Amino acid sequence: MAARQQLAPVLRRLRPGRCSAKLGRQATLQLPVSGAVRCFSESRRRCLRSTAAVAAASGKFTSETYPDIKRDGRFAQLTADHVAYFRGLLGSESAVIDGVSSSDAVDDIEPFNSDWMRKYRGHCKLVLKPGSTDEVSKILKYCNDNMLAVVPQGGNTGLVGGSVPVFDEIVINMSRMNQILDFDEVSGTLVAEAGCILEVADQFLAGKGYIFPLDLGAKGSCHIGGNVSTNAGGLRLLRYGSLHGTVLGIEAVLADGTVVDDLCRLRKNNTGYDLKQLFIGAEGTLGIITKVSILCPQRSPAQNVAFFGLESFDKVQQAFREAKGQLSEILSAFELMDEGSQALVRQVTNNKSPLEGQYPFYCLIETSGSNADHDSEKLAAFLEEVMEKGVVADGTLAENETQIRSLWAWREGITEALSHLGGTYKYDVSIPLKELYQLVEDTRARVDEAGLLGDTDDFPVRAVVGYGHMGDANLHLNVSTRRFDARVERVLEPFVYEWIAERQGSISAEHGLGLMKKKFIGYSRNPTMVGLMKNIKDSFDPKGILNPYKYL
Amino acid sequence: MAARQQLAPVLRRLRPGRCSAKLGRQATLQLPVSGAVRCFSESRRRCLRSTAAVAAASGKFTSETYPDIKRDGRFAQLTADHVAYFRGLLGSESAVIDGVSSSDAVDDIEPFNSDWMRKYRGHCKLVLKPGSTDEVSKILKYCNDNMLAVVPQGGNTGLVGGSVPVFDEIVINMSRMNQILDFDEVSGTLVAEAGCILEVADQFLAGKGYIFPLDLGAKGSCHIGGNVSTNAGGLRLLRYGSLHGTVLGIEAVLADGTVVDDLCRLRKNNTGYDLKQLFIGAEGTLGIITKVSILCPQRSPAQNVAFFGLESFDKVQQAFREAKGQLSEILSAFELMDEGSQALVRQVTNNKSPLEGQYPFYCLIETSGSNADHDSEKLAAFLEEVMEKGVVADGTLAENETQIRSLWAWREGITEALSHLGGTYKYDVSIPLKELYQLVEDTRARVDEAGLLGDTDDFPVRAVVGYGHMGDANLHLNVSTRRFDARVERVLEPFVYEWIAERQGSISAEHGLGLMKKKFIGYSRNPTMVGLMKNIKDSFDPKGILNPYKYL
Repeated sequence: MAARQQLAPVLRRLRPGRCSAKLGRQATLQLPVSGAVRCFSESRRRCLRSTAAVAAASGKFTSETYPDIKRDGRFAQLTADHVAYFRGLLGSESAVIDGVSSSDAVDDIEPFNSDWMRKYRGHCKLVLKPGSTDEVSKILKYCNDNMLAVVPQGGNTGLVGGSVPVFDEIVINMSRMNQILDFDEVSGTLVAEAGCILEVADQFLAGKGYIFPLDLGAKGSCHIGGNVSTNAGGLRLLRYGSLHGTVLGIEAVLADGTVVDDLCRLRKNNTGYDLKQLFIGAEGTLGIITKVSILCPQRSPAQNVAFFGLESFDKVQQAFREAKGQLSEILSAFELMDEGSQALVRQVTNNKSPLEGQYPFYCLIETSGSNADHDSEKLAAFLEEVMEKGVVADGTLAENETQIRSLWAWREGITEALSHLGGTYKYDVSIPLKELYQLVEDTRARVDEAGLLGDTDDFPVRAVVGYGHMGDANLHLNVSTRRFDARVERVLEPFVYEWIAERQGSISAEHGLGLMKKKFIGYSRNPTMVGLMKNIKDSFDPKGILNPYKYL
Repeated sequence: MAARQQLAPVLRRLRPGRCSAKLGRQATLQLPVSGAVRCFSESRRRCLRSTAAVAAASGKFTSETYPDIKRDGRFAQLTADHVAYFRGLLGSESAVIDGVSSSDAVDDIEPFNSDWMRKYRGHCKLVLKPGSTDEVSKILKYCNDNMLAVVPQGGNTGLVGGSVPVFDEIVINMSRMNQILDFDEVSGTLVAEAGCILEVADQFLAGKGYIFPLDLGAKGSCHIGGNVSTNAGGLRLLRYGSLHGTVLGIEAVLADGTVVDDLCRLRKNNTGYDLKQLFIGAEGTLGIITKVSILCPQRSPAQNVAFFGLESFDKVQQAFREAKGQLSEILSAFELMDEGSQALVRQVTNNKSPLEGQYPFYCLIETSGSNADHDSEKLAAFLEEVMEKGVVADGTLAENETQIRSLWAWREGITEALSHLGGTYKYDVSIPLKELYQLVEDTRARVDEAGLLGDTDDFPVRAVVGYGHMGDANLHLNVSTRRFDARVERVLEPFVYEWIAERQGSISAEHGLGLMKKKFIGYSRNPTMVGLMKNIKDSFDPKGILNPYKYL
């Protein structure tokens, strides 16, 4: 009954004819974090550079962290002759960062050598920035002929070490190929170069009344080519589906320089195997994507965001079913956060929670539709239903764009909050919905039983928390640590992977394999599948120059 | 202004508070065709059998129609020993139809030897109906070891001769593997065997409040395994997207009997190349799909169908843009029919058109949403807009389920109407929207200039018409003929394919390649792409036993 009373103002506001009624509780919400958190995504590039600078000064090399990985002796060492060839090819001074001929370029190269989390750091001495597909083709042909290994790199915002070198691989950075090439306003088909930044593409589309069918925290830095190469999932997959459905075509360059022109702009094309699908999520191991054609949906003029507290994961599941039923075609996100994750955000930001009480679980629900009144009515019906049935314990609803950003910040700010508190073991997994949160509980119990979890500095683990894209059955299990302690990893691995494999889950829902999960693929794919994948890799890249030491 | 007046009653009905107002014009619509046309799809299996019987009596063999295709001498001839092995393996008498040991089985085999259009007819002497994945695996291993060619066959409703043999290939018919295996009511994930009939799956889902994310005329006969193997598109791709986005996993058996278990039920799984994508649309040339896991959306309780007359293709494009904007998330179909196609339906059915006048173009617009009042309001706003701007010349709106079926019959009934009138050259193509209908006009002009098109029996061609899925830029160009005349094909081909290739369209939007379009793939795919496809085929099926003579 308490919940019913608290949510009543929301319903009053939502009911037709009472749109001007104020939502009292939301008015008390403190908003300072919202700008900062949104800014986080928009300023990732700067963060990345400063992070890389720190790594340059203090970071360990991947070759030290992973001593079992040895440089493949088949690959040639870079020489001044090689560099001269690339200089001649690319012309522009800024397109070649040369640490082979001189050591002065070390600082310039470092941002391309390290990932933004400071987890992976390579020994790259040459960065190439091609400006056209033809240049990518010539670079790769030369590398393939001369047994020079390469790492394709987009915005370098990945989480599994896929976009930085391990040894002295050449970085082929796509940032100069960043143009929007075409947009069809009737069909909604966008064609752009791979190095186009996601947010740039989305802002372009906003001006046309369309939206990029993918959104994620790193959108201010990540490239759409990288998004496609990693099959990025993000915040609104629930509504717009995966890139396997929305990408209409790609242009890619194979290891030997062959240009694969599959830049189809058609929604339907049943003429042979759908080869582009292999490149989606291949993390640059089959070729370098140079252009993308993608179907973009209409931008929804109306948006609502609600934030709920719930007493159990059973109630979360009930809320999800109700949301699917009542909000149906306008539901665009259903995000889950546990109290542990929200406590960390509160601790770091000092912001007041959107709800008065604390609950074991929180959900953020977003609707996007073409008619604000209709959406509000649907949302009111949904709220009435979940209140009536006692599914949610408390809730609040954003009144305006600022409050929408503020509520989202409680979900999107988790990663940043964790990064302020020390190291984090991050697991990005898919599990059938009904057991989604059980992994967090089982992991927490296990770490606790090992005597590693506690509130004081005596314990290496601060918290075991879970959050993620409930709508996609995609959980982010995060283990926040105070310091490095080898016992923690031994308790976590392979436990987490085995737990997931037993439930036929995925050990990498959306982050990919990269270097981090290469050796764990067997937990989510059987040997037959892995064997077929290796055949494909060998067929597309027989010398193995593309992104070696990773993926398979 | 005339349009405005005619549509006014529709608007009155749609406006809130006036829901009981009658739509006068629709009341006069004759409905006899509706039941029959829906029934057409549901009774395709029976049609198929009687059609096949006719083919058995009179149909030409594919080997006669395509004399250039020679039987591959590497394949073994079937012997009684082979049949004995299969009998022992499959046990059940009904699982083996044996025309090798005795000629009595010819009539029983004929329905599997011929397609429903009577265009393709093989010389198959053995039909196998496995009941499990293990049986499919053992069949294929034996065939691969003994160089016996096979044709995987679902509901045999294809349009390009992909599901029937050319020579004496063994038909592996999947109809006995027809079980629904699992359904998760929270996530909407359905797992079923490949031989499950689409309509059966959809009816099962209807009982759970869900819908299969694919609908097409042949749903009463086609198998979901066949749908996935041919990447079927159908009527609601506009809303639910392609199977590349909705299929979550498959189980398939390779040529050598290896079972590929990729029956993932997760929405996200970024662990390696997405191999299942290769099987989607491979038409059984890489393996036989035995099980499918697919994400099904909520069924929309509210449905509206409107039917419009328009004065030009420019207006059709305007209407499409308006529909996308105004109807947005509830738009589930936008179908196009030209006057020529509707005239043929009128001629065959003797039904009165839904509109009083005749127009060069007609559109059928369907909305599906969770709230009938909201959808009606959106539709009213859309109608007001298109009337205000003079985009549509006349229109009508279905009042109930019977009228919805009746309006759909004017779109879905075209194929059947054409089949009553003689032979048809059917082209299923994708073209960038703005030139979509130009192909019909250019083809009609070309046939006319050749003196082949006219209203009397002197002319072999009765009509050149166009219709299709406007929302997917997918046109069905149909050339209706009175009799076979070699000049017609010479005028049409390669003209149609060249026209499409010049515009970077697809020569097969949704029907696939099969036997019919194998030799034309070069119009839509460049040699690099075709070469990569052939490598994949060779890698998955090195002996080439799977569906030979077709596809690539």
